[in-house]
Amino acid sequence: MKITAAYTDLYQLTMAQVYFKTKPDGRAVFDYYYRHNPFNGGYAIFAGLENVLDVLETLKFADSDLAFLEQHGFEKEFLDYLKDFRFNGNIRSSQEGDVVFPNRPILQVEANIIEAQVIETMLLNLLNFQTLIATKANRIRHSAKEAVLLDMGLRRAHATGGYYASRAAVIGGFDGTSNVKAAEDFNISVSGTMAHSFIQSYGDELQAFRDFAKVRPKNCVLLIDTYNTLRSGLPNAITVAKEMEREGEKLLGVRLDSGDLAYLAKQTRKILDEADLGYVKIVASNQLDEFVIKSLKDQGAPIDIYGVGTNLVTGKPDAALGGVYKLSEYNGDPRIKLSENIIKVSLPYKKQVYRILDKNGMFYGADAVTIFDEGAVEQMEHPFDPTKSMSLKGFENEALLQDVMTNGKRVIPTRTVTEIADYSKSRLEKLPEEYKRFQNPHIYKIGLSSKLKEERNNLVLKHKF
Amino acid sequence: MKITAAYTDLYQLTMAQVYFKTKPDGRAVFDYYYRHNPFNGGYAIFAGLENVLDVLETLKFADSDLAFLEQHGFEKEFLDYLKDFRFNGNIRSSQEGDVVFPNRPILQVEANIIEAQVIETMLLNLLNFQTLIATKANRIRHSAKEAVLLDMGLRRAHATGGYYASRAAVIGGFDGTSNVKAAEDFNISVSGTMAHSFIQSYGDELQAFRDFAKVRPKNCVLLIDTYNTLRSGLPNAITVAKEMEREGEKLLGVRLDSGDLAYLAKQTRKILDEADLGYVKIVASNQLDEFVIKSLKDQGAPIDIYGVGTNLVTGKPDAALGGVYKLSEYNGDPRIKLSENIIKVSLPYKKQVYRILDKNGMFYGADAVTIFDEGAVEQMEHPFDPTKSMSLKGFENEALLQDVMTNGKRVIPTRTVTEIADYSKSRLEKLPEEYKRFQNPHIYKIGLSSKLKEERNNLVLKHKF
Repeated sequence: MKITAAYTDLYQLTMAQVYFKTKPDGRAVFDYYYRHNPFNGGYAIFAGLENVLDVLETLKFADSDLAFLEQHGFEKEFLDYLKDFRFNGNIRSSQEGDVVFPNRPILQVEANIIEAQVIETMLLNLLNFQTLIATKANRIRHSAKEAVLLDMGLRRAHATGGYYASRAAVIGGFDGTSNVKAAEDFNISVSGTMAHSFIQSYGDELQAFRDFAKVRPKNCVLLIDTYNTLRSGLPNAITVAKEMEREGEKLLGVRLDSGDLAYLAKQTRKILDEADLGYVKIVASNQLDEFVIKSLKDQGAPIDIYGVGTNLVTGKPDAALGGVYKLSEYNGDPRIKLSENIIKVSLPYKKQVYRILDKNGMFYGADAVTIFDEGAVEQMEHPFDPTKSMSLKGFENEALLQDVMTNGKRVIPTRTVTEIADYSKSRLEKLPEEYKRFQNPHIYKIGLSSKLKEERNNLVLKHKF
Repeated sequence: MKITAAYTDLYQLTMAQVYFKTKPDGRAVFDYYYRHNPFNGGYAIFAGLENVLDVLETLKFADSDLAFLEQHGFEKEFLDYLKDFRFNGNIRSSQEGDVVFPNRPILQVEANIIEAQVIETMLLNLLNFQTLIATKANRIRHSAKEAVLLDMGLRRAHATGGYYASRAAVIGGFDGTSNVKAAEDFNISVSGTMAHSFIQSYGDELQAFRDFAKVRPKNCVLLIDTYNTLRSGLPNAITVAKEMEREGEKLLGVRLDSGDLAYLAKQTRKILDEADLGYVKIVASNQLDEFVIKSLKDQGAPIDIYGVGTNLVTGKPDAALGGVYKLSEYNGDPRIKLSENIIKVSLPYKKQVYRILDKNGMFYGADAVTIFDEGAVEQMEHPFDPTKSMSLKGFENEALLQDVMTNGKRVIPTRTVTEIADYSKSRLEKLPEEYKRFQNPHIYKIGLSSKLKEERNNLVLKHKF
């Protein structure tokens, strides 16, 4: 399935037809943001921007899309408009890979309201999912420290969503994937050796190992738990490793895929070392996540490479990031969405977000949200609590929302997944450790300029019943 | 992204190269099955088969795939083989939409082992996800009874996986989707009207409703919670409904998207009825799932149409179905994968599955697994407990694994999503209610023929250490 402009919710098009007939020239500003950090963590890793820009630059309705819409009661005049539909708007955004926080704009769309609505679903779909997975991957990276991390999740991924999961995993800190198609298209490292079926097809485990090592001696990892890890798989792997040595080759590793991984890894390391095979690495897989890997590390399990599948690519247990896309300005006037819960009241106006840096260039733990043109401010207010504010005097700052697309054309160079991953790593290094812990992480502060807060409160009162 | 043969894990190809060099003519039988019902329920709805068959009929490696593999050390002779790679095997399967249970083959692949391995990842990826979502959808259908159910999840779906989620939702019992692209390609019902941004762009809620109703009077649903549901949205909707009546049109419904849905729905119904608008339907959305809808029903909330998003399309809380693909026969010899846990020991041999029917044609609550050629049996054994067996004498049965693809060609007609959904419904009607409840559902029995059980046990002993 190719992403065309019909990769959207029908209501975007029913609304668009009304705009087209009643006020075709409306100019809107929408904010993309989320309300709660995924996984009860202290941050998220923003991912998916490059894909969104790629889609937007060539987005149009296919003839089949238009024929379908015609059958569903859309009017000819509007369909003619859709035939020439292109996205011609502006996008300002945080950089892909940046560390981001709840309740502040991460990305801003400024466009004709029809164009801004038609792209909403695609934009949310690609950004919500990849931000979820990049964040999960980063939590796993945090536990795994310097170990190699490989994504092996395609078989449990949400159909073709797995293609984007493999990409986002690398942005979040994974080293590679088993997913050939994703590796090919996104230029990321790919790896993989053997499944249980390979050994089963032989019946004879030793012969299976021998044939494999003979045909593919480089990067050879033998799976040793098909019959019995310590009594069969490991002794056979050692036999083959010694045979490989005589051919001038080296066995790269053995893989554990079941049982008590901490116990088996320790035993395996000991037995390998006793056989003078200290160079053979231990690979572990089987329902891993950031907590299991942390536990394995805490137990001193000598695992060099972790393969992570289901929990990574499905973003368990959250499974979704609830990012939203809210209208904040229309034809220059501020707009608001009310809620019984003030935390869910949206922020009006086209805005800018400033990240505050301390004197060492580290993140100070605060992003200040302002009306776009007011510039950086010297004090930020708590969004709701009238007694709380924070002075920003003397601190450096960065304006986070930067032009990435203007009049429908990219204005930033394309970045590779590796470049984005490197950028993400450099940004995470500026985030103090307290924000990264899993239990009760430190809360990063989001404040408003006093002008934005006042205008927001005025609009709430104006719509009050 | 198009699904090519490179939509696979790299290890399928490293194994394939070894097979190619050492035993290129191996013939394998693999079983697709899962070990635990999703959502702690009593069954699953099998979905995704048509997509798998479509992919298999045209599956090949793109030139770019082969170039990528060449860079990764695959040998020229093997790449030449992959250039002409096609799937030429046989598939026997349960019908798409059937009610299925754990630990018995749902689908069986019999093919050259290289072909069988290359397709594994794609097959698991498409079947696991759609079976998960069809099952979730069916649970929601069970709670919603006769109410209309609409999928609105694309923005929270796992990127393009949302396309398949919308399809699977209909197989599980949903009436339609907001997802235009999925509706177009899978010929399913599509619906959608307005978002909060539409009303916000006007500022004036009444004018927004009026413009919408004027341009799109058919299937018009007004979203009434942007500012205040009962004090603003509903009175404005009633004003517009009366204006529509004067134009000979009828407002289809009003939508609640926040707040206490049970309370608001009851108040809304009462106020609409008092205004002689008994025909106006109530649509509800906002983080719904099978449990929330059951609670709304139990409270007597007069909701006619439910829109379900995140919890449906992500299959929360499971997020994945752990379906596996296990080698059971190689060149005519039985194959087994051992495990410390006997429940995880795979079943050897090419097999058939018989569903037992009672004298009324209802499912008796038992599927019997046999060696393929032995035919239906008169008694089935508990898979592990030697003291338990069940007589099947005098019962009718159905052989569930039927030819769907032979030598790489489909041998069943293409079925539409609607036909599959109808079939699923007819099958569910044969499943007694006790298997459908959410709390401690009745356990559907899976038994083995005594021959299969004996052979399985012999193989376990043979590989014992």
